[in-house]
Amino acid sequence: MQRLRTRSSKKVNCSNDFQRAKAMTEQPKITLHWLDHSRSQRIVWLLEELNLEYTIKPYIRTGGPRAPPELKAVHPLGKAPVLVVEYADGKEKVIAESGHIIAFLIRNFDKESLLTPDNTDAFDEVEYYLHMCEGTLQPVLTFLLVLNTAASRAPWFVKPVISSFVTKVFELYNYKEIILCLDFLETKLGENAAKLTASSQNLFFVNNKLSGADIIFALPVGEICIIGDKLSHLVDKSKYPHLVRWAHEIRERPAYLRAMEKTGQYEKPKEQEQE
Amino acid sequence: MQRLRTRSSKKVNCSNDFQRAKAMTEQPKITLHWLDHSRSQRIVWLLEELNLEYTIKPYIRTGGPRAPPELKAVHPLGKAPVLVVEYADGKEKVIAESGHIIAFLIRNFDKESLLTPDNTDAFDEVEYYLHMCEGTLQPVLTFLLVLNTAASRAPWFVKPVISSFVTKVFELYNYKEIILCLDFLETKLGENAAKLTASSQNLFFVNNKLSGADIIFALPVGEICIIGDKLSHLVDKSKYPHLVRWAHEIRERPAYLRAMEKTGQYEKPKEQEQE
Repeated sequence: MQRLRTRSSKKVNCSNDFQRAKAMTEQPKITLHWLDHSRSQRIVWLLEELNLEYTIKPYIRTGGPRAPPELKAVHPLGKAPVLVVEYADGKEKVIAESGHIIAFLIRNFDKESLLTPDNTDAFDEVEYYLHMCEGTLQPVLTFLLVLNTAASRAPWFVKPVISSFVTKVFELYNYKEIILCLDFLETKLGENAAKLTASSQNLFFVNNKLSGADIIFALPVGEICIIGDKLSHLVDKSKYPHLVRWAHEIRERPAYLRAMEKTGQYEKPKEQEQE
Repeated sequence: MQRLRTRSSKKVNCSNDFQRAKAMTEQPKITLHWLDHSRSQRIVWLLEELNLEYTIKPYIRTGGPRAPPELKAVHPLGKAPVLVVEYADGKEKVIAESGHIIAFLIRNFDKESLLTPDNTDAFDEVEYYLHMCEGTLQPVLTFLLVLNTAASRAPWFVKPVISSFVTKVFELYNYKEIILCLDFLETKLGENAAKLTASSQNLFFVNNKLSGADIIFALPVGEICIIGDKLSHLVDKSKYPHLVRWAHEIRERPAYLRAMEKTGQYEKPKEQEQE
């Protein structure tokens, strides 16, 4: 467990007890139950963008792609991320599902409107992306991982048949869905790029302002499809210049880098990675 | 295309032009792009519960489980349901993703607070279920359908190997996830059942008041896992008395029945069904 302290957009040294006590009265206690190589990391990024004080409770995968059973004590479905918010009156809220966690944090803790949409249309658009990411894009990627893992464990004498079947499923279903989503998002970012008024401005999914949409897409679009190389046979990056630009821009944000730094100590070596 | 008219909880005969014109000035024009045997039907149910005036634009599957390509003209991802809302000032909003459509409709059109949560905790709980249903439960069910369809099309000489592989994937992954979700939801409804104060009251997921949670679960929990027989080898209904009660209670609601009646004409015969 690690206590993290960042109350303003600049790093604040909270070693002063008075300062820390003051900060703690300002916001409920937030604990993020975090799992390595999971959907959890972007929540750390969001907590950093919101300049919140929070604690990370790390869980490490040990036996394959499944989350460790201890997570079921936090939430019955046993998945990560899970956010636990403890209020001053003793009330505790357990918040699960990435899209819901992101919306909840922004709704309740974005006092400076850093990520809050500027109008109703933008709010609706962000809500759409939160649902679309976890309900349409991410399941197709998870399905790839589950099927690839299962195929890799098939006995040698049936492996060629299984591999050929799995490849066919991917070609007929998963790959088409992934490209459909990426094409759609590239078009959207292309439209947004045309609206940027200064070359120094950054590209974001909704109204060129950082929002929950950028946070949620950071994993499946940014890390998996654009930055990572596991789908390089499928994703021709030259077709997605705006997604590439966006993925690199978000990774350079101070909050993103702080999030990576804070969880880096828990990550397993790359060769055991599970997404 | 079919014009449907239900402005109050009782059926209203809007054959009177004045009445209809009045109704149209009260709400924007709502069109639901609806696909047979898809996630669309529960949106019809919600529109009926909200007593809204709306038009259904039906699409019928013709070549297997995929949605017809015309849907891409409505929304680039080409899925159903999609809601199109046309406002009096000419503005048009295209709303996709079931969870988002449900939240959007309740947020904007539930003037009598029929489905609006009574407090912030209930609101957060409904939001959680909207995300959990589409981000956790539904993908595992969709994955079952995709893999079963692909396996059924394998050449006869590899079919036994493929069937055995697919069954193993289901046992190791999908079935566990489905049971985990059903157990979790059964526990929740069991707690709610204990809070009912009159035997005549109905059981709902959040505070025993109808909400977006009941609407979203109507398909994967109600129709697929509890009412339907495709998963009867997996789902022992005697273990889920509260889910069974809830699934039957929602199906008896007048709005649910009206929704079924209104779309029944578009459904293909049962033997060609795709979920």
